[in-house]
Amino acid sequence: MFEQLDAFFNPNTVAIIGASERPNSIGNIMFINFLKPDVKAKVFPVNPRFEKILGVQCYSSVKDIPVDLDLVCIVTRASLVPKIMDECAEKKVKAVIVISGGFKEIGEEGLEREEYIKKIAKENNIRVIGPNCIGVYDTNSRVDTVFLPEHRAGRPKKGKIALISQSGAVAGSLMDSMAYQNVGVSKIISFGNRVDVDETDLLKYFREDDHTSVITMYTEGLAPNRGQDLIKEAKIVSKEKPILILKGGKSEAGKRAASSHTGSLAGSDEIYSAAFKQSGILRMQNIQELFDVSKALSMQPPAKGDRILILTDAGGAGVLSTDSCQELGLKVPELSETIQAKLRKEFPPHCSVVNPVDVTGDTDNERYLTTLDTVLPTDEVDAAIVVLMLQVPLMDEGVIDYIEHAMKKYKKPITACALGGKYTLEVAAKAEIRGIPTAPTPERSAKAMWGLVETGKIQHPEFFR
Amino acid sequence: MFEQLDAFFNPNTVAIIGASERPNSIGNIMFINFLKPDVKAKVFPVNPRFEKILGVQCYSSVKDIPVDLDLVCIVTRASLVPKIMDECAEKKVKAVIVISGGFKEIGEEGLEREEYIKKIAKENNIRVIGPNCIGVYDTNSRVDTVFLPEHRAGRPKKGKIALISQSGAVAGSLMDSMAYQNVGVSKIISFGNRVDVDETDLLKYFREDDHTSVITMYTEGLAPNRGQDLIKEAKIVSKEKPILILKGGKSEAGKRAASSHTGSLAGSDEIYSAAFKQSGILRMQNIQELFDVSKALSMQPPAKGDRILILTDAGGAGVLSTDSCQELGLKVPELSETIQAKLRKEFPPHCSVVNPVDVTGDTDNERYLTTLDTVLPTDEVDAAIVVLMLQVPLMDEGVIDYIEHAMKKYKKPITACALGGKYTLEVAAKAEIRGIPTAPTPERSAKAMWGLVETGKIQHPEFFR
Repeated sequence: MFEQLDAFFNPNTVAIIGASERPNSIGNIMFINFLKPDVKAKVFPVNPRFEKILGVQCYSSVKDIPVDLDLVCIVTRASLVPKIMDECAEKKVKAVIVISGGFKEIGEEGLEREEYIKKIAKENNIRVIGPNCIGVYDTNSRVDTVFLPEHRAGRPKKGKIALISQSGAVAGSLMDSMAYQNVGVSKIISFGNRVDVDETDLLKYFREDDHTSVITMYTEGLAPNRGQDLIKEAKIVSKEKPILILKGGKSEAGKRAASSHTGSLAGSDEIYSAAFKQSGILRMQNIQELFDVSKALSMQPPAKGDRILILTDAGGAGVLSTDSCQELGLKVPELSETIQAKLRKEFPPHCSVVNPVDVTGDTDNERYLTTLDTVLPTDEVDAAIVVLMLQVPLMDEGVIDYIEHAMKKYKKPITACALGGKYTLEVAAKAEIRGIPTAPTPERSAKAMWGLVETGKIQHPEFFR
Repeated sequence: MFEQLDAFFNPNTVAIIGASERPNSIGNIMFINFLKPDVKAKVFPVNPRFEKILGVQCYSSVKDIPVDLDLVCIVTRASLVPKIMDECAEKKVKAVIVISGGFKEIGEEGLEREEYIKKIAKENNIRVIGPNCIGVYDTNSRVDTVFLPEHRAGRPKKGKIALISQSGAVAGSLMDSMAYQNVGVSKIISFGNRVDVDETDLLKYFREDDHTSVITMYTEGLAPNRGQDLIKEAKIVSKEKPILILKGGKSEAGKRAASSHTGSLAGSDEIYSAAFKQSGILRMQNIQELFDVSKALSMQPPAKGDRILILTDAGGAGVLSTDSCQELGLKVPELSETIQAKLRKEFPPHCSVVNPVDVTGDTDNERYLTTLDTVLPTDEVDAAIVVLMLQVPLMDEGVIDYIEHAMKKYKKPITACALGGKYTLEVAAKAEIRGIPTAPTPERSAKAMWGLVETGKIQHPEFFR
């Protein structure tokens, strides 16, 4: 099963059916993607109208290609796809991605075509992603069937997050957003009409995929009759790798929209919530959360408790962080008298040492170090949210060194909050390179911490008894 | 009253007590702020240790300054402030900003100083902002007492949003963030320990301030015994200008944090919610909302109904926008058969025309124009959320022209959603310059729309009967 699906991500040979020389056409963008020097797969263009495409010999049919094919990507008109599937079967292709639209989503005629793909795939043991999708982007093998041009949709760097999306647009815009914000991914898959490969298959695959440690998903409704399989699989996978799902079509109006979009018959939202809960899936409420929580989980270990130190130089942001933590079920315990006394000895009297520890606007980097070194080694907290108001003159990006030091030394998860403009964003970007997930608002860094704590509960329940 | 408070924002003469030549000291940054060519106020440095500061004649005391003083800013040690207040009284100064810390927040000794300021101010009819604050930033008069250096904390452009903050750090980091994101403000005020000028005073002032059309506030607890006054005033002001309040210290742990931060005895959260509701105040749940909703209100008119058109080229984002609208109490009505038929005639069959109108990933700019021109003139919707997935190749920034056209022609409020990286953010920035508030996620553009609808309910209740 893993090997079969792996043909999508690590093919040795790929054919692009519908490859083209016309600039910015789907067949052109995709073919160029495979010509890049860091792609190890050998690519064969297929198009009866050309002898060569960009200097590469072109074939009239997959059947003419002189080697075995691991992966075939189809970008032709929908009406040609059934015949191409027949040829792929004859050629004993392992995996097919059908990018083309014009199937179930356009009605009866399309549905017939789709059923035909399904039949051929099943009879010939071909795995299929699509149709009507953007396919696959893999940061390790550099397989990239995403037909959105790079000047419009950036490609993220290597990382540990896998993104599975029913919607090509959600996948494409998140991909672009992650690239811009320097968040790494392992693989992105949009499966569109989901004629074969589905969420459960991909959960199984990602469980074994060494490049992936966090699995994220956007869905408007799981594959029919696969609910129990998914729950069963997720129960196993979530013990090892966190699974985050954003489910579209929560509301009645949203269900109607989902039904015209992907034809999903979104079931009762309560049933989804209950199923996610019992299988260890973290349900995300919106795209922002999916982004923030997956990023934090890709950088930080799960928490082994829910008691949070809040360290801040901005009193207001400390208060808002505390509110957010409590709303999310995280604890912000008062520190013991012993610890408070230690901190009080080090700081001027206007600092607050209860928790939040507020080192105030005249802080330097050292007060951050002192606090982290005093509180994190104790058994009083399990994790820290560090608020950096970087507008103050005496603190600077050197504070990152201290956070990194504490992160490595005490092995308790840390998220950071830094609200501001140019300088703040520069420092935040540097913090993220060092593995400190940073969000611009108190509620977002608290939510990221929530993800680390919830994952801790699933993976290390013994610490939460 | 207006004239008295106006001395803070439009002084003709200002003295800086504690002005200094030492780079990056508070007294240096603030003095330089007032030397800038676009500041109309004449500034007088006061510091007995200098004869001149940056070439400007320096005085030993406000009493030596040969003109009447509208505003005095004090940045000296706290222990000197009582004597300076005496001198300000003698000099018949109109308004004083005490930036210095070292008052109530440090205990008994500071509290005594604070009480003395209060007494002198009251006896001599001097209005006071502070102590322990960052003071005032005014984009029109260019008065800027914010001592955060500009390379750390950017200054926003002129605009219609007034920001009142109990917390200097929240004010400073939001200011920096607004500058970076090109959001305009009229005035920013942080009042710290709030010895005199408070929220209610400022609401009264901003009601009459022609530069302000949206009033935003961060507070951890209103001034004691002023609750009824605030409610009374807000009831009047909110009919004309929306008031958005983010209240820190919602949770029990947050209240404890607020109490160490500003000494606020945060009351029951339910009481705040009820009071805000009856006085037409929109309660914000977090900083992001405060930012997004105030921006939308500064750009768009209030909605005259709650029926929203969702126009998208990304099915998934349309579904998520619909979910968000319904969760916020906004309606996403199915369009009438007549309108659906009109759109169906114009678009390829794979587009959906029910609402969301999904023009899909092969859209050009024209499908946006067609939809807006077909749906907005009808009585079927009151506003539109426009989702732009700009990763697709056939649409480009020209779509902004069409949104702007619709905005001006149909006068129904519009918010936009654009998730992505470099190209998307560039287009979003251009959209905002044209007055279209743009957020990166469906839930945030829906929340912005919620603010426009809620303001409509307060200001035009006749349309919601």
